[in-house]
Amino acid sequence: MVKRGMLIVLSGPSGVGKGTVRKAIFEQGGNDFVYSVSMTTRQPREGEVNGEDYYFVSKAEFEAEIANGGMLEYAQYVDNYYGTPLKYINKTLDEGYDVFLEIEVQGAMQVREKMPDGVYIFLTPPDLKELKNRLVGRGTDSIEVIDKRIETAITEIKMMQNYDYAVVNDEVPLAVDRIKDIIRAEHLSVNRVMPEYTEMIGELER
Amino acid sequence: MVKRGMLIVLSGPSGVGKGTVRKAIFEQGGNDFVYSVSMTTRQPREGEVNGEDYYFVSKAEFEAEIANGGMLEYAQYVDNYYGTPLKYINKTLDEGYDVFLEIEVQGAMQVREKMPDGVYIFLTPPDLKELKNRLVGRGTDSIEVIDKRIETAITEIKMMQNYDYAVVNDEVPLAVDRIKDIIRAEHLSVNRVMPEYTEMIGELER
Repeated sequence: MVKRGMLIVLSGPSGVGKGTVRKAIFEQGGNDFVYSVSMTTRQPREGEVNGEDYYFVSKAEFEAEIANGGMLEYAQYVDNYYGTPLKYINKTLDEGYDVFLEIEVQGAMQVREKMPDGVYIFLTPPDLKELKNRLVGRGTDSIEVIDKRIETAITEIKMMQNYDYAVVNDEVPLAVDRIKDIIRAEHLSVNRVMPEYTEMIGELER
Repeated sequence: MVKRGMLIVLSGPSGVGKGTVRKAIFEQGGNDFVYSVSMTTRQPREGEVNGEDYYFVSKAEFEAEIANGGMLEYAQYVDNYYGTPLKYINKTLDEGYDVFLEIEVQGAMQVREKMPDGVYIFLTPPDLKELKNRLVGRGTDSIEVIDKRIETAITEIKMMQNYDYAVVNDEVPLAVDRIKDIIRAEHLSVNRVMPEYTEMIGELER
């Protein structure tokens, strides 16, 4: 029997750089995990590719997927839907591959309820000023949107206690290394490896 | 206020190579943790240095230390005492340094009761045959001692479930890397960093 893969969930406040970190993880390569592309109704940003960064769909298409029970999680955030299509995730886990999700915090909590065995990683800004600078620096959002996002970010940081790990995104390569450390360490956690050792004990006793 | 250091406990069955792995970790250097030398009444093996590998003491000296309440943990194992002198450990942790212990499994469980916040790592043999080969290969023990050790090892592997992580000692450099991954990841665990973030939230709300 193939050992079921591990679900890895990267989340964190909007603007913290989840997408950049996730991209850097997969560009670096050498990973034993598969990226599960999210679905959203928001407009693609400069350079974002449909089917790679997100599945970009219309509001009607997204709501149809919800109605069909096809979403592992979804959330409405700054007037857009974001979510994870269920198809492929369980199949990939059953085949023994780890699956990597990069999702918003509302969605991460829905996933945690359904898949408590996952590894939940919260990406944090070094401080609020930095978060604000990043949002302004992006130059694609209005002041009102930025203020709303910061307020949301405070709420989200309070949600950190629902995660297993907190990774500061001070520098992308450092954040990438930390996330990879966490994934390697989690594979060694006794809760995850105990079934194999129970079998080994059986052999020692023969 | 200095953030209190983290206690790291490496344990595992006798003969699994705890001492070799621990030595390799410290010979590699670049560590942010301090080694706490154990105390034992057993004879030094070839190449072992008093005060580096162990404090080698007489049975009378060891029992006096127990009577004085000076041991964090101790165990009798194959007719010898092994234990961790308490002096320096709390002081070192309070100064903000992580402390690394390499101890027998009986002792590790005593430490876990007193210091549940520590990171408990169980070093495992790839399989029993390998364990037996190592004990025989060492050539310093009688068949009776070896058989007794194997029986004890089976019991100890069953104790793995009391640990946080299981690291296979298939190759020392790999085991060293795994242990260092675990230590880095543990520093990112939400339980350990939450106090800092609680403070950060206070600043965001101002």
